[in-house]
Amino acid sequence: MENKNLQKCIDFILEIEKLKTIYRQTYTIHEDRQENDTEHSWHLAVMAILLADQADEPVDVTKVLKMVLIHDIVEIDAGDTYCYDAEGYKTKALREAAAAERIFGILPDEKGNELKSLWEEFEACESSEARFAAALDRLQPLLLNLARKGRSWHEHGITSEKVYKRNEHVKDISENLGRYIYSLLDDAVDKGYLPK
Amino acid sequence: MENKNLQKCIDFILEIEKLKTIYRQTYTIHEDRQENDTEHSWHLAVMAILLADQADEPVDVTKVLKMVLIHDIVEIDAGDTYCYDAEGYKTKALREAAAAERIFGILPDEKGNELKSLWEEFEACESSEARFAAALDRLQPLLLNLARKGRSWHEHGITSEKVYKRNEHVKDISENLGRYIYSLLDDAVDKGYLPK
Repeated sequence: MENKNLQKCIDFILEIEKLKTIYRQTYTIHEDRQENDTEHSWHLAVMAILLADQADEPVDVTKVLKMVLIHDIVEIDAGDTYCYDAEGYKTKALREAAAAERIFGILPDEKGNELKSLWEEFEACESSEARFAAALDRLQPLLLNLARKGRSWHEHGITSEKVYKRNEHVKDISENLGRYIYSLLDDAVDKGYLPK
Repeated sequence: MENKNLQKCIDFILEIEKLKTIYRQTYTIHEDRQENDTEHSWHLAVMAILLADQADEPVDVTKVLKMVLIHDIVEIDAGDTYCYDAEGYKTKALREAAAAERIFGILPDEKGNELKSLWEEFEACESSEARFAAALDRLQPLLLNLARKGRSWHEHGITSEKVYKRNEHVKDISENLGRYIYSLLDDAVDKGYLPK
């Protein structure tokens, strides 16, 4: 790689530092604060290593790793849209597409196109890797939210119907994870962490 | 994977949540705070995707990704040992080996052994993947520290001799990255960010 391209990579590496300031609605378990996108993405990546064999279809782990590591980078420009924010979801696709254009555009063409395609594949949620990444993206905040006794759900007045619905496709890529998540949700409802 | 093993993976995924509370000496660029191990690990992983072609020997990117994602997990028990803390380094290996035993031991045997081996390989710093991961582990805090005008170096009274020495092996896995890092350091000395 010539040095002009190395510099473009470094510029991108410095640009995505901003993702450490994009906070999600999920609270971390051991500090009284929300988690940011980079912490979340790291957590998904380790989960991908450990849970890939839960998928009922073959998944390319390297592709899943790359996907989850970069899936939230567009939020540097577009912000985090809470998954139960119906208003925000109306403009989410447009805001994020513009962000992808700008941010991945910092990279040398070939690398920028690779990451942008991975992000588009994640968003389309059709390939086995994208559906598996999406399943992890459901499970991770759920684990945190349960450990915090459903704090985010209570703060936003989210009820069980919405949460079950958001998690209904996990079983399409992993019957076992789908069942596991539903058992967690049943337990959360029983304990009053997740309002009926 | 039977459900007993799935539960062990989930227990591990919840355990490593603690890594979000292990703070490094490096300051984030856009907030007035130190970065934590999970933010750092995420940053290294994205760098590994982008800079793998800088290595002068073949590197297995998937292995590098796994390595950088888990390389700091032992710090949950052992704490972060600042790279210029000579006293702390005397006990670092022992403290971290005990941590690896406990934390990776939470996982089902096969997965725990895989991650523990990857961590040991990273620490041994002999394979091309480990040396490349180590190079990224040098470059990332350097980029942040330069953007913060050498704040960590000034706070700890670190001088250029030590920093050049810490970065001298980068060229053994990537001549180009080694040269690039030295040019950054020269510039940092010129600007007074890095005391002579």
